[in-house]
Amino acid sequence: MAEKTLDDLFLDTLKDIYYAEKQIIKTLPKMAKAAQSPELKAGFEQHRDESEVHVERLEQIFEMIDKPARGKTCDAILGIIEEGKSIMDEFKDAPALDAGLVAAAQAVEHYEMARYGTLKTWAAQLGLNEAVSLLDATLQEEMATDQKLSKLATAQVNKKAA
Amino acid sequence: MAEKTLDDLFLDTLKDIYYAEKQIIKTLPKMAKAAQSPELKAGFEQHRDESEVHVERLEQIFEMIDKPARGKTCDAILGIIEEGKSIMDEFKDAPALDAGLVAAAQAVEHYEMARYGTLKTWAAQLGLNEAVSLLDATLQEEMATDQKLSKLATAQVNKKAA
Repeated sequence: MAEKTLDDLFLDTLKDIYYAEKQIIKTLPKMAKAAQSPELKAGFEQHRDESEVHVERLEQIFEMIDKPARGKTCDAILGIIEEGKSIMDEFKDAPALDAGLVAAAQAVEHYEMARYGTLKTWAAQLGLNEAVSLLDATLQEEMATDQKLSKLATAQVNKKAA
Repeated sequence: MAEKTLDDLFLDTLKDIYYAEKQIIKTLPKMAKAAQSPELKAGFEQHRDESEVHVERLEQIFEMIDKPARGKTCDAILGIIEEGKSIMDEFKDAPALDAGLVAAAQAVEHYEMARYGTLKTWAAQLGLNEAVSLLDATLQEEMATDQKLSKLATAQVNKKAA
């Protein structure tokens, strides 16, 4: 068996986040539909569109390293999304629903930040400079989304929930 | 059925991270045992000790709001830990093992940062000022751990893996 190196780990993690992004794209419209605040609805819809671009960037990176773009089941994102679904069920029509949706979305964002941060650092180590730029572009967007959610929570959503 | 408000959501999320911390405490010794780098081993052991304090702080908050300290299955952390276990299996004895362990640990840290950030904001909205301080203390430690892992990865672990 060949010794597994950073190339293998990079490819595995690329597949992990590729799968995760596709799950997120399926879930965001449900969260937008459930959200009570029009701003939160719009935020989820916008992030869905951004996620389509994130998927395209990942496909460019698969191409750079000459591998087929393929996902690998990501238990982490499935668990995070499952918790979001519980919120949607348990807090349906409740004053705290939107606050719960923001929390669920921020858990998703943080997972993505962890993965894109890691992939960017590994791409740099592997000398994949174009991949570094693409991964950084996505990372910055995930961080911006997380901050927008924090602002919306403090300015509006949490007060309504309390 | 009473309308669920932020108090309910705060309690639910407190139970979620309480369960998560206990899972993390069980998992860190396994990660320390698997790690090849002595610094990474020591880092995981230190974070295990810190996590014990995080659990105690959560118990203080349960007491403040007059609720029994009780966990609630957290699918997110189970999924994140499951991915860490796959790394330990698939990269056993491989040059990239430590890089994979750092990535797994940073996914855990990011989950905790998301949850503690949310809980701190909610505690402030609910006027639970002492809880804000406790949650912020833990949040700062999770962020510090994440940054230490990033430094160790760049300075040492990723080079060895490449």
